[in-house]
Amino acid sequence: MDTLIVRSRARCELIDITAEVQRLVAARGLPDGLCVLYVPHTTAGVLVNEGADPAVAADILATLERLVPRHGPYRHAEGNADAHIKAALVGTALQVPVAGGRLALGTWQAIFFAEFDGPRQRQMCVEVRPAAR
Amino acid sequence: MDTLIVRSRARCELIDITAEVQRLVAARGLPDGLCVLYVPHTTAGVLVNEGADPAVAADILATLERLVPRHGPYRHAEGNADAHIKAALVGTALQVPVAGGRLALGTWQAIFFAEFDGPRQRQMCVEVRPAAR
Amino acid sequence: MDTLIVRSRARCELIDITAEVQRLVAARGLPDGLCVLYVPHTTAGVLVNEGADPAVAADILATLERLVPRHGPYRHAEGNADAHIKAALVGTALQVPVAGGRLALGTWQAIFFAEFDGPRQRQMCVEVRPAAR
Repeated sequence: MDTLIVRSRARCELIDITAEVQRLVAARGLPDGLCVLYVPHTTAGVLVNEGADPAVAADILATLERLVPRHGPYRHAEGNADAHIKAALVGTALQVPVAGGRLALGTWQAIFFAEFDGPRQRQMCVEVRPAAR
Repeated sequence: MDTLIVRSRARCELIDITAEVQRLVAARGLPDGLCVLYVPHTTAGVLVNEGADPAVAADILATLERLVPRHGPYRHAEGNADAHIKAALVGTALQVPVAGGRLALGTWQAIFFAEFDGPRQRQMCVEVRPAAR
Repeated sequence: MDTLIVRSRARCELIDITAEVQRLVAARGLPDGLCVLYVPHTTAGVLVNEGADPAVAADILATLERLVPRHGPYRHAEGNADAHIKAALVGTALQVPVAGGRLALGTWQAIFFAEFDGPRQRQMCVEVRPAAR
């Protein structure tokens, strides 16, 4: 299990970490397998979506903000209840196939670290598991 | 890693692919393990829910449409921003246990390919991994 | 694959099952690996979020109720359409890394069984898979 350090610069931000994850996959040297991603935080998540047009990430964040506004009536008193809820909706774990030593992402897919309570220094756990024999 | 071809016939559609996935699991010939599903698209996802009453799939789609309307004010200019957001909420990867050479789904569970920008020809990546020893 | 029995006591409830999962992980005796969790139900899910302040779980449930009200206009006639939709949003499968024989959760993370149509006796499938070599 490797750990990537991710630095967010805004409260809510989708950070494209595809290149960094790809570097870990290549370093692992396995031709085929599964790349497991895990976010060890409660106000951040991980998702795969379009990386080409940054408007897509902006739309995802804006919709989450509309559905789960920062200042709702929430019980959690730390001012980041919305961030916990957004993380619960997006999820904290993901897996992406590896083929030919590379992430087998679809043409338009990128891996995003989903920050909902930044800016902060964050971690993303990455493990590359060998192919099923 | 096998690839299933999925043909959607509507813009938004939950397509029950349980039988096709089960066929791949049986062909793999492993008594126990884990079936990993991965959608290599940015406007589609994968989920497990009730397959017996088609009203459940209709309710899931209708609720996603209410929460993420097709024609919001979105930045992404291709007219399918809602499909990207729905895919981000539903997720693109899933795993289902395999026991006795079959998907160990719950009584009412079916696996659905979640189309949000069809009709299209789509892919679903499927890998059956051996049981932990 | 082990099975935990989970008893819910309310219609909607996030039940912290971290200790029970940790017990299974310890019993498995593997220093490193991946803990795979799977919910074999269509009106329940699994998620990881903050376990320290119970207000966080309450906020997650209240927001899901606001977004997916119990009594919407739904087609599914069993009165629990909202529970199916909530389960589809939260997800039915999850994986958590294992390191040093323990769940490698973040400082504030707990594993929750997400009940949306209780009270019921439920199952949670748990498998600990060895580390990638």
